[in-house]
Amino acid sequence: MARVSQEHLDARRRQILDGAARCFARNGFHATSMQDVLKEVDLSAGAVYRYFKGKDELIAAIANEVLSEVREAFEEATRHSPPPPPDLLVGRVLGRVLGIWASLSDDDGPVLPQLIMQVWAETVRNRELAAVLNEGYAAVRQGWVSAVRAYQEAGMMRSDVPADDVARTMIAAVQGFIAQQSLFGPVPVEVLQNGLRALMSMGEPQPGPAADHSSVNLLETRSN
Amino acid sequence: MARVSQEHLDARRRQILDGAARCFARNGFHATSMQDVLKEVDLSAGAVYRYFKGKDELIAAIANEVLSEVREAFEEATRHSPPPPPDLLVGRVLGRVLGIWASLSDDDGPVLPQLIMQVWAETVRNRELAAVLNEGYAAVRQGWVSAVRAYQEAGMMRSDVPADDVARTMIAAVQGFIAQQSLFGPVPVEVLQNGLRALMSMGEPQPGPAADHSSVNLLETRSN
Repeated sequence: MARVSQEHLDARRRQILDGAARCFARNGFHATSMQDVLKEVDLSAGAVYRYFKGKDELIAAIANEVLSEVREAFEEATRHSPPPPPDLLVGRVLGRVLGIWASLSDDDGPVLPQLIMQVWAETVRNRELAAVLNEGYAAVRQGWVSAVRAYQEAGMMRSDVPADDVARTMIAAVQGFIAQQSLFGPVPVEVLQNGLRALMSMGEPQPGPAADHSSVNLLETRSN
Repeated sequence: MARVSQEHLDARRRQILDGAARCFARNGFHATSMQDVLKEVDLSAGAVYRYFKGKDELIAAIANEVLSEVREAFEEATRHSPPPPPDLLVGRVLGRVLGIWASLSDDDGPVLPQLIMQVWAETVRNRELAAVLNEGYAAVRQGWVSAVRAYQEAGMMRSDVPADDVARTMIAAVQGFIAQQSLFGPVPVEVLQNGLRALMSMGEPQPGPAADHSSVNLLETRSN
């Protein structure tokens, strides 16, 4: 009996979070009212306030869940040894991130990229959330730095570049793609994988006008 | 006389926009009140409302200015022929983007990355802003696709990957770095340049466990 009751409570809590997530993805944290959430989940104020004291608690619950799932996706990707090459590693984490709450969609597609964007914007003013994000980013970077070191030690990548710079760049590619998904709608993971594979094919800069760094710098000077 | 007056009007308008930008970067569009802006610019309500009817007009003015400056930075970078290699191209646009409103800083550094993040989050619910962003993105992508085609035609990059995929990936790297700047504070442009240069050094996947795509796929199947 107690067990059923706990299951019921959990399911109801989930129902509220899912509805709130749809509202927040559609209209942002701040322009969404508790009335909007009540309407979306089709529950009374009393039923909802039993689980969440107000919008701030709902925002915190959703933001923390998003950050923890995204962190797990990033960390999982670098847990294998040897790590897959960058295009596959990045494709893998992006696929997992976009799979979070994949069942929650509205007219514009999955809600997750929009929610991540709201969480990012919210950290500007929410120190508590910023701390969670910072801690997650530090842990994720550690794993990605290890993967980059493995590439460098295997002779797959030049080793005169700090592994942390490469890790940040790979993480940036994933973050940028999440931003594009949020701003411009769904894009297949293969786009990012293809793009990275093409960049990886370039090899060392060749001599010649197109890749001569000194002539580019000259150009830069002239145009500024 | 009329000329001086116009200059004065322009300077006053600029002063209000700069103060509002600092407020918005610090606290987000929605949690900032007109009172906060008045306090920041140290002007009376009457003086400010002569230029902007309310917060929505201020948000629109700042968002449109940010989007237009960022678009120009992205477009300028691909205007040179031949285009600089990807690491320099991306470094150039990132440097320009971070140079926008560089004189406007608060305790956490330049305000621009935070403002871009607020604009991104705002487009979720603001169709007008989303249209401006979409139009800018389409124009920017066109320029970047041309740059990628130039790499491919010069034999610098494998040409069996759609140029648009590579363009999106390079743009994503810049966007991801802007997100990192907003979330985790200033990072030198060189970090992204180094990271891309290292990825570009990888060349075609080598045979062997670390880069054998089929063994990775196997791994993927096993772990899911």
